[in-house]
Amino acid sequence: MTIEIGFLVFPRVQQLDLTGPYEVLAMVPGARVHLVAKALEPVTSATGLVLTPTITFAECLALDVICVPGGAGVNPLMEDAETLDFLRRQAERARYVTSVCTGALVLGAAGLLRGKRATTHWAAHDLLAAFGAIPTQGRVVRDGNLITGGGVTAGIDFGLTLAAELTDVATAKAIQLHQEYAPAPPFDAGRPETAGPEILAAARERLSATRRERETIVARVTRG
Amino acid sequence: MTIEIGFLVFPRVQQLDLTGPYEVLAMVPGARVHLVAKALEPVTSATGLVLTPTITFAECLALDVICVPGGAGVNPLMEDAETLDFLRRQAERARYVTSVCTGALVLGAAGLLRGKRATTHWAAHDLLAAFGAIPTQGRVVRDGNLITGGGVTAGIDFGLTLAAELTDVATAKAIQLHQEYAPAPPFDAGRPETAGPEILAAARERLSATRRERETIVARVTRG
Repeated sequence: MTIEIGFLVFPRVQQLDLTGPYEVLAMVPGARVHLVAKALEPVTSATGLVLTPTITFAECLALDVICVPGGAGVNPLMEDAETLDFLRRQAERARYVTSVCTGALVLGAAGLLRGKRATTHWAAHDLLAAFGAIPTQGRVVRDGNLITGGGVTAGIDFGLTLAAELTDVATAKAIQLHQEYAPAPPFDAGRPETAGPEILAAARERLSATRRERETIVARVTRG
Repeated sequence: MTIEIGFLVFPRVQQLDLTGPYEVLAMVPGARVHLVAKALEPVTSATGLVLTPTITFAECLALDVICVPGGAGVNPLMEDAETLDFLRRQAERARYVTSVCTGALVLGAAGLLRGKRATTHWAAHDLLAAFGAIPTQGRVVRDGNLITGGGVTAGIDFGLTLAAELTDVATAKAIQLHQEYAPAPPFDAGRPETAGPEILAAARERLSATRRERETIVARVTRG
């Protein structure tokens, strides 16, 4: 039986949000992974890598898993009726509704986080509450059929967790071994608590323009 | 000053070998990342994701960093004179000659590993010796200006190590924080020593056809 998995793709997506879990989930026996977009034209990710959609919203079949990755490009999506309608429609029937990184904000804008525990990138974590979600710390957070991953590289941990759900632990472990996922970061700077105040301040500064725009949009879409 | 970084792309590349370090290195201030191929036509990776080259061998400028990712598609590359010539030419002037996963085998076939410590995916590690390399365990192994990464996800650790080389530790840490790289694998199965004999046997079985073909090619290209 085919497991249909769809990643949303859009301009300025953070490509590793998508390509990390893609590589894990594409190795699940029977899985078919789609890159779903409004149109089939290639899109440029936040860091320049070009991704080519494989199916349009209009043609997309009912997915078993819908996944929304994050990136600077989520900002306009939070107010994009066509995208939000597509997500709501897929979420009605999907076995798992999921996100990586700030993709959670798009699920929030679609009304899919209300009353649910969810996580997102550390720099956007507090914004989840505006959508009625229960902001929850964790690299992978599950609430019923909603599974959300933290920032960018959390997508790999998310992918392995979901792979075990879709199949079994042995299959997920075999994929982990194939991908030699025994991480050894050269620095311990992956979280605000460990990066130190100067690194954190620099990262916040670099993210500040996107963050300001994001706050405005979140306030607008959650008003009333 | 621009730092020119080129990833080799080819059919059946393991996309996460490339997209992991790409995302890290594309965030290095002043870096320009190229996907280098024989032609600009999009190529399909081992798991189906389509990657679009940005520059051809013929047009490629002198790179500061050349990186060869791995995947099933490295097998024909080990006997592809055009690719090997391109790598040798770039390696003469590059500041860093690098690989992720089984991309090391292509560097080996180009004669760029002789007498050097190097690593690769666990399932190909013993093959390095045939190229005159000194097979060395490690997620990231450095010997002079040669930096090789282990299997697939090791590319992220490799990318951060290289980012610190190209700039400084603070910059690499800021990128790590941006990408929330504080990995928490749900299983401890990322290495043969931890995955357990049954998972290892299953993974070896799945890799066996590629491995057999690879052994034959390595024997042929390293003969006399």
